[in-house]
Amino acid sequence: MTERRHDREFVRTFFTSPTAVEGEDDSAKMLRRAAGLRGMQAPDVWVPDNEDATAPSMRDEGAENIVEVISEQGAEFPGEIHPRMVWHRDSPETRYQGFQHMLDITDPERGAVEHIHGFVIPEVGGIDDWKKADEFFTIVEHEHGLDEGSLAMSVIIESGEAELAMGDLRDEMGKPTNNLERLFLLVDGEVDYTKDMRAMTPTGELPAWPELRHNTSRGASAAGCVAVDGPYDDIRDVEGYRERMTDNQAKGMLGIWSLTPGQVVEANTSPLPPKTGSWLLDADGEEVELASEDGVEAYDGDRLSLEATDGGYELRVGGDARELTADELREELLGLTSYVPSMDDIVDSMEEFEAAKEAGRGAIAMTQSATLRIGGTEIDIEKDRMWDEATYQAAMTPISLFQDVYENRPDQHEELEERYGAGVVERAMEVGL
Amino acid sequence: MTERRHDREFVRTFFTSPTAVEGEDDSAKMLRRAAGLRGMQAPDVWVPDNEDATAPSMRDEGAENIVEVISEQGAEFPGEIHPRMVWHRDSPETRYQGFQHMLDITDPERGAVEHIHGFVIPEVGGIDDWKKADEFFTIVEHEHGLDEGSLAMSVIIESGEAELAMGDLRDEMGKPTNNLERLFLLVDGEVDYTKDMRAMTPTGELPAWPELRHNTSRGASAAGCVAVDGPYDDIRDVEGYRERMTDNQAKGMLGIWSLTPGQVVEANTSPLPPKTGSWLLDADGEEVELASEDGVEAYDGDRLSLEATDGGYELRVGGDARELTADELREELLGLTSYVPSMDDIVDSMEEFEAAKEAGRGAIAMTQSATLRIGGTEIDIEKDRMWDEATYQAAMTPISLFQDVYENRPDQHEELEERYGAGVVERAMEVGL
Amino acid sequence: MTERRHDREFVRTFFTSPTAVEGEDDSAKMLRRAAGLRGMQAPDVWVPDNEDATAPSMRDEGAENIVEVISEQGAEFPGEIHPRMVWHRDSPETRYQGFQHMLDITDPERGAVEHIHGFVIPEVGGIDDWKKADEFFTIVEHEHGLDEGSLAMSVIIESGEAELAMGDLRDEMGKPTNNLERLFLLVDGEVDYTKDMRAMTPTGELPAWPELRHNTSRGASAAGCVAVDGPYDDIRDVEGYRERMTDNQAKGMLGIWSLTPGQVVEANTSPLPPKTGSWLLDADGEEVELASEDGVEAYDGDRLSLEATDGGYELRVGGDARELTADELREELLGLTSYVPSMDDIVDSMEEFEAAKEAGRGAIAMTQSATLRIGGTEIDIEKDRMWDEATYQAAMTPISLFQDVYENRPDQHEELEERYGAGVVERAMEVGL
Repeated sequence: MTERRHDREFVRTFFTSPTAVEGEDDSAKMLRRAAGLRGMQAPDVWVPDNEDATAPSMRDEGAENIVEVISEQGAEFPGEIHPRMVWHRDSPETRYQGFQHMLDITDPERGAVEHIHGFVIPEVGGIDDWKKADEFFTIVEHEHGLDEGSLAMSVIIESGEAELAMGDLRDEMGKPTNNLERLFLLVDGEVDYTKDMRAMTPTGELPAWPELRHNTSRGASAAGCVAVDGPYDDIRDVEGYRERMTDNQAKGMLGIWSLTPGQVVEANTSPLPPKTGSWLLDADGEEVELASEDGVEAYDGDRLSLEATDGGYELRVGGDARELTADELREELLGLTSYVPSMDDIVDSMEEFEAAKEAGRGAIAMTQSATLRIGGTEIDIEKDRMWDEATYQAAMTPISLFQDVYENRPDQHEELEERYGAGVVERAMEVGL
Repeated sequence: MTERRHDREFVRTFFTSPTAVEGEDDSAKMLRRAAGLRGMQAPDVWVPDNEDATAPSMRDEGAENIVEVISEQGAEFPGEIHPRMVWHRDSPETRYQGFQHMLDITDPERGAVEHIHGFVIPEVGGIDDWKKADEFFTIVEHEHGLDEGSLAMSVIIESGEAELAMGDLRDEMGKPTNNLERLFLLVDGEVDYTKDMRAMTPTGELPAWPELRHNTSRGASAAGCVAVDGPYDDIRDVEGYRERMTDNQAKGMLGIWSLTPGQVVEANTSPLPPKTGSWLLDADGEEVELASEDGVEAYDGDRLSLEATDGGYELRVGGDARELTADELREELLGLTSYVPSMDDIVDSMEEFEAAKEAGRGAIAMTQSATLRIGGTEIDIEKDRMWDEATYQAAMTPISLFQDVYENRPDQHEELEERYGAGVVERAMEVGL
Repeated sequence: MTERRHDREFVRTFFTSPTAVEGEDDSAKMLRRAAGLRGMQAPDVWVPDNEDATAPSMRDEGAENIVEVISEQGAEFPGEIHPRMVWHRDSPETRYQGFQHMLDITDPERGAVEHIHGFVIPEVGGIDDWKKADEFFTIVEHEHGLDEGSLAMSVIIESGEAELAMGDLRDEMGKPTNNLERLFLLVDGEVDYTKDMRAMTPTGELPAWPELRHNTSRGASAAGCVAVDGPYDDIRDVEGYRERMTDNQAKGMLGIWSLTPGQVVEANTSPLPPKTGSWLLDADGEEVELASEDGVEAYDGDRLSLEATDGGYELRVGGDARELTADELREELLGLTSYVPSMDDIVDSMEEFEAAKEAGRGAIAMTQSATLRIGGTEIDIEKDRMWDEATYQAAMTPISLFQDVYENRPDQHEELEERYGAGVVERAMEVGL
């Protein structure tokens, strides 16, 4: 795997806050509130947002608020802090404003920069535009006596040009004329991307942009960065947010933007393995999680039914009924079910495989058994899965993420131990090392 | 958004006609007929097709027919005219023939070139092949005393090489050794692309190629060009053609090839907002447009049923029935419904947001309410949507397209006013300016 | 189509065998067994796998086994032989080990190299890493007096970097400093790719990676290589393996990895046209193959029903019933059915089109008729399809594949003739030449 060059190898959450709100006694109110977040409500990366979340007329005040709040509260904040500056590939004026804000905010005498890990640059264009931003970072570092490359740069991918630029990163990083190794997060910004691509849908809903997300994840993988998906606007739709995260995770995009502390909790939790395992059933094309009742996994819907007959069983899927022997039924159900392992299951399997490897065996079968109940009829099944080095390595991804979280987020230890139990947490921190 | 450099920023329709048909009294018959199209039947870009639509033995005659018909009828034609020449990345002979035809057709003394906006080059390969075509355009322009770059070049993407070349365009445009800024349309050609990729399907149907269409749309966005999808062969399948266009629009590919005047009407209409709004219902996984009856939006299918009970309501989706209170039901239905706004709705919302912005507010809630009837049971719902600058900008895409159409296609004014009413058209031409 | 530079223009099957198994009397047992495969059980490309399939401690012995088995049995093996060496973009030590094994194996005095067509290099990174491997091939060729470029190089795409490199191939091939024209197969390796991309799914199942497979197919098309999909782990799931191959074929990826001789048979067969044609019915969203019974194509499920009524017919799809006249019913059924042509059908149509072309006609209608029976009710339908040069060219892909197989795999002649009949085989070898 391409080496990640920053402290955090995984970032689950990217939470933005307006830097200055008009008409409030304290325009920095939202910043102060966000700076006080702790535990699962606190993001891995907090982004005081001096761009879209803040009115253009308030952005100079916003830059001042960033200094004030971070110098006061930054030392205690449990995540990293990456303020978003203004920038636009088509506007030199905007770029110069972003540069000036960075220069102001990072003045060491003002006490904020020591708690700031980097800046987020929106609306980047092709790779030459990324280099302009990088150059400003370098100048800022020199002006203030900071180490060259010490400020991380994250970008928002919200144009076709920027999407293409991610394919050039590996070739451009490491040239003596830039410090692009400072790149940290590649964050999709689907709202402006949709505008830039001139895409439209009948209801005004955002397109899903699967290819963009793939390309962002691939760009991050190839260049040692971390991929983050854009905001999910419908804050009340928790189920939709979760589905989007599951879809992203299958692309290697493990982080996502959060707009509220509630979304932060969801997004901090989603990539972590579940506390308890569960069985899924393909019920005539619809995937259903079975209810676990006294050790039996039960399906009570009517897309599928099962009845014992004289010769064996009758299994009905949708409108099609079939007579099956017990063995045929088991074979059929193996194809229709899958198991979602818990953290405990994953750690168990990894430990078991590590022991087998130590004993000179390269592949072992892991068995998962269950009693299924469909309608009122019960049947036992057993699912085997071969584990070899590759299975083990792939299973390592959620564990590596967990270890990264546990090491970097002491403020979440309590909640993690509540979730998994202290024993499982301890074992999870030991496997794969 | 990357600046578009041509007169038309949007192209809905790309309509090809054979240039010379064998065995007819007048081999230019099809050209003359197409040149007479007006209104919604006339395409944004008309392509006298001296390549695949015309037999190889007829192509010299086809080039002559192009000159004859366009010099006579071109001045009156309401769309742009871009004849397609022969070209092939693997055949110098074909490339030279295409060059000669261009040279002949554009002779200013023959009176056609003043009505010709550019040429379409099929079967291009990698970027160096695009440069060969561009060089011929430049020579043609010099030979005939035309301004360098005045003839637009459009290409058909029908090879993996050409798909990759779209990723290089931005870097190559603007070099002193070429005039690639003349690039206008990037048009997918899925039939030959399928052959080039050696893809096959059991029924011989074309693959959907979602990645190609994404990459073409992105290439157009990054290089200031316009993306157009390839031909939809099944002329009788109007529903399928519409679905393809909706899918394309979500990718930012707003134009499509048309093979008949009937397809031109469909494709000229599809990207325009509807005359009346409508409600969609997710009926157990199938999206259904509700019938609007006396102000009530009605669902009469049997995938979903709703009945009032003592405590509230029983909602059945597929086989699953649930008891819900009125509030729970509303919450559930909000998740299952969506609203497709009319042109009038979009203009309303944009005007409202513009007024709010003027008054110093950055975000406002837009409400859409309806009475739903499922089975015989009615219930009122209200859908809120937050509009901020980004929502406004995204809603601008169909309006910008409409404005581009209205400015460039006076021959469609009457039909557009019939569709929307003169008042809505007038207001649509004012928003966003 | 981009010219393929190797003997095989199509590769259906890529079959790996461990080179040395610990704890057996004969550690080369698996190699010897694979070398003995013939007919449909023998792959187009056989890969003695000295990487992941073989324990690290056994790889020196594995290299020796390769020499021993191939020098003895290689002359008789009906497919090509491409052993996989060790390699890693991040490990110079591994790369040097791979180089040494290649050097050993190809010593002409040992008698194996004359039967070896090339080597497979796993875990490649960016294009510079591919060049390092290519350079070792060149050195090996010079050391042993082989022609430069005579050993083919195939790579496993199992990192984001390698995926991006496929976009650079065309530009890099042909430079005087490399021999990258030796590139043959681009093979996806989804297990390690998933790890490299840090992707994860709830059940641990591999993501489908449609974009990777598209990009691999496109890379192969643009650079004259052959695209091959990675291993399908669930060996018992024959249906799933077939569906994956159908999906791949629609992307132009006509080859796939096989882990067992059973999978080889499936994968050698899948891209070949079927022996008999069949009708597909879209039964309320589910595609069903109709059972052919005495010349009638029958649907017996209950997602769709059809009954004759006084005025015509009642067609029920899911819960929606409609009254239709016979003509309306035919129109509706044309939209719901499609035909999968047999090899015989394809050859017929191609011959018919070739004759029409000879007679000066550019497009002809091919008609397919059938009697459908839904429930107990029968109705005749007729499907027309226009064939023009493009249809003909696209239909050529499975025929070209068949011709490539027939020419290169005499050991499969008997099985192919059993499948199709000698007459069809003979005609299939004649069309399109």
